[in-house]
Amino acid sequence: MNARRTDLTQARTPRGFADRGAAELAATRAMADRIRETYELWGFEEVETPFFEYTDALGKFLPDQDRPNAGVFSLQDDDEQWMSLRYDLTAPLARHVAENFQKLAKPYRSYRFGPVFRNEKPGPGRFRQFLQFDADIVGAPSVSADAEMCMMMADALEAVGVKRGDYVIKVNNRKILDGVMEAIGLGGEENAGRRLTVLRAIDKLDRLGPDGVRALLGDGRKDESGDFTKGAGLDEAGAARVLSILEAKRSTNAETAEALAAEFAATPVGAKGATELKAIADLLAAAGYDGRVSVDPSVVRGLEYYTGPVYEAELTFQIAGDDGKPIQFGSVGGGGRYDGLVGRFMAENTPATGFSIGVSRLQAALRALKGETAEASTGPVVVLAFDRDRIGDSMALAARLRAAGIKAEAYLGGSGMKAQMKYADRRKSPCVVIQGSDERDKGEVTLKDLVEGAKAAAAIADRAEWTESRPAQVTVPEARLVEEVQAILARHR
Amino acid sequence: MNARRTDLTQARTPRGFADRGAAELAATRAMADRIRETYELWGFEEVETPFFEYTDALGKFLPDQDRPNAGVFSLQDDDEQWMSLRYDLTAPLARHVAENFQKLAKPYRSYRFGPVFRNEKPGPGRFRQFLQFDADIVGAPSVSADAEMCMMMADALEAVGVKRGDYVIKVNNRKILDGVMEAIGLGGEENAGRRLTVLRAIDKLDRLGPDGVRALLGDGRKDESGDFTKGAGLDEAGAARVLSILEAKRSTNAETAEALAAEFAATPVGAKGATELKAIADLLAAAGYDGRVSVDPSVVRGLEYYTGPVYEAELTFQIAGDDGKPIQFGSVGGGGRYDGLVGRFMAENTPATGFSIGVSRLQAALRALKGETAEASTGPVVVLAFDRDRIGDSMALAARLRAAGIKAEAYLGGSGMKAQMKYADRRKSPCVVIQGSDERDKGEVTLKDLVEGAKAAAAIADRAEWTESRPAQVTVPEARLVEEVQAILARHR
Repeated sequence: MNARRTDLTQARTPRGFADRGAAELAATRAMADRIRETYELWGFEEVETPFFEYTDALGKFLPDQDRPNAGVFSLQDDDEQWMSLRYDLTAPLARHVAENFQKLAKPYRSYRFGPVFRNEKPGPGRFRQFLQFDADIVGAPSVSADAEMCMMMADALEAVGVKRGDYVIKVNNRKILDGVMEAIGLGGEENAGRRLTVLRAIDKLDRLGPDGVRALLGDGRKDESGDFTKGAGLDEAGAARVLSILEAKRSTNAETAEALAAEFAATPVGAKGATELKAIADLLAAAGYDGRVSVDPSVVRGLEYYTGPVYEAELTFQIAGDDGKPIQFGSVGGGGRYDGLVGRFMAENTPATGFSIGVSRLQAALRALKGETAEASTGPVVVLAFDRDRIGDSMALAARLRAAGIKAEAYLGGSGMKAQMKYADRRKSPCVVIQGSDERDKGEVTLKDLVEGAKAAAAIADRAEWTESRPAQVTVPEARLVEEVQAILARHR
Repeated sequence: MNARRTDLTQARTPRGFADRGAAELAATRAMADRIRETYELWGFEEVETPFFEYTDALGKFLPDQDRPNAGVFSLQDDDEQWMSLRYDLTAPLARHVAENFQKLAKPYRSYRFGPVFRNEKPGPGRFRQFLQFDADIVGAPSVSADAEMCMMMADALEAVGVKRGDYVIKVNNRKILDGVMEAIGLGGEENAGRRLTVLRAIDKLDRLGPDGVRALLGDGRKDESGDFTKGAGLDEAGAARVLSILEAKRSTNAETAEALAAEFAATPVGAKGATELKAIADLLAAAGYDGRVSVDPSVVRGLEYYTGPVYEAELTFQIAGDDGKPIQFGSVGGGGRYDGLVGRFMAENTPATGFSIGVSRLQAALRALKGETAEASTGPVVVLAFDRDRIGDSMALAARLRAAGIKAEAYLGGSGMKAQMKYADRRKSPCVVIQGSDERDKGEVTLKDLVEGAKAAAAIADRAEWTESRPAQVTVPEARLVEEVQAILARHR
């Protein structure tokens, strides 16, 4: 049917999207199960929203303000309404809560796991579909909920295998910065854009350093490629005042909270921010999370909708950077309080706080920490097949292994011995089962241990040579098939 | 911030999409885990393709030919290429295999699980996002692979809890029908459209009965709403010949295969079809799947790309239909051999066979079979909180329970005793933990068993009344918190 066709379609994955194989998927699933257990232990229950939302319900809260109308995948439904693929799991949660407000027991503690989509320029390691794992509490106005979020994020990282000391959860409060901005004349609706510019400047501290941030707070900054980013237009004193927040970091949470209270309580909002951070610090200390969760004024998060505490999970161990020099692994997730987001839909007061874990990034971190050991899972036992008319016999042997809980398959291709051995090898089979006519007549099967015999196998060219050398193999009565295979599996466990 | 707002966005789920709650998600996950175990036991490995494919790579193989350009959600990328959300998991697999042909060990046995999207008119119970669970073998030309698929589908149904006798896997071969169509003058490229009409007419046998199918094979059929569907234009003899295939069903697989061979071997393709079905019947008998898998000439499947054996999983138990009368639950999945699908991308011969399970439909069937017992999962223990300044104490009690592996949370809302009890009730908490100032001073905690006390709780108005009546509750030393809660949990397990 397809011989000599000239109209072949090119098989290619769309730009910025990728296929994922069994080992990676199994690692994701194992990690997600640990996170799920942690969240459920903390009383959170799962909810799933669909991949599409109406575009107006989703809102525009993407961190990249330079492409205000891009960033999402959108299309028009046949009733003319615009729909977009979710770009995170927070905006859909706000819609879900507003739509089901009366039905939900509040505080509503929920978690969500799944892919989100960003219509961005794809690049190396920059995908347009990736996994997030979120947890949120809606309807808890007090910062005890924010403190709990920070602790649970720490628990989740330890549950997936990040050791204490290899991570820190940093927590700050937007209200400190809001107070400073009000004090330097950046209050009011008319300055919303400039406030966002300030926020995003500070959010880039890790990447650009203090001088880069100072430039973005002032007139602007030209990057290495020559592109110019417009700044917030603060004068030197204003920029210095903003940057002074970062200097309030002390060696303990209590001291940092006190330093912030002493320095930034001039405005009511600033004072409230410092009081809230102090309350969080007290709860962290009482619960024994000091050190794991750190009050840190440098954390602001780049999203404009946060209204109070903001927090971020950072992995502190080092990996090799692009230039080979060691760098800190960095952020694997974060969140904050967003008291206004549900309020887009309803007049009721609906305080909310929550965070998102970047599953792919965390998985990359675990690979860096643990190495690629997850890869080494075992494939199925392969029952070889020489005589196409006797394929039923091979299938019956495989069925007996499966009945004993052993992964097994009969070889169903049309190839010969060597190709079948190569197939078993590529499938990471622990062993193959061979029953030629000789063995069948004698009621026997031959088992070849592929782990033992891996090297020898490469040299074997045909069945005659095989029969002579028989590396790492044993011939047993057919009745002993299951226990002999179990013995081989046990040997390599 | 949001008081008196007049610019509120309406919170609504897009048409044809739905949120899913914890109980349903847990049931899906449990079912998917059983299916996954079955497929892995048969030597299949997981692979995931992204949600988007290039539209040309996806092809147009949707069952509904009446809306040839609809059916999928598509949008144009910024480089002008059209992308579509996957509408099934088969077309993306074909792309994946072609793109990675050299890397894959063949026969390539893989499975995939995830949502697919159909841009169809939404209706009651008709969603535009739903879950499929697929398994395929690529590179196995012989019908032993098709036989294996049928057996594995049977195993999967039993693994998720469908009892033997409550389902049947029906298997047929497209080549029988191809032979008949060739014999009545419907061969050749120019008749492809009419052949597809014949196919889809037979596929509607369950719904329309023989007379409805006969009308669709002939001039056409007017349905109850008055809509007319054009027929395949067969004359009476041609239609009768096609319908005679359905009459070849006998009481055993061997007899049915023989009847088909006797009746429909006039063309080479028909003869081949009958021979293949006979081979499948022999393999099923040898493996002990007679009865579970039934050779049945009425199965054709509505997709045009099938080239050989086709199979379908039907649940045979009865449920109440829309009109209250008992009806058979019907199909929960199916598939077939599609030797040409990978060949769209490459000249190599790439035989393939596989099937898809409709996860939502199967889950609905299991609910019908087992009742809603999955719903009754237990929520977290709730530690009540009366004094906002002492929330840290409640959080510490919850932390001690979690450390013992017990789901627990401190109540973080701002409401009083009665609302907190109601909250615990709605969360399906097994018990609440209470520590007022009295208890705290004495180093005690009070536990209330919510399962025992459910009825009494509704009548309690305030803390005073509570203190007097104390239904189903016990006060114990704080040091015994964990074991006393464990005792309550054990009581209701």
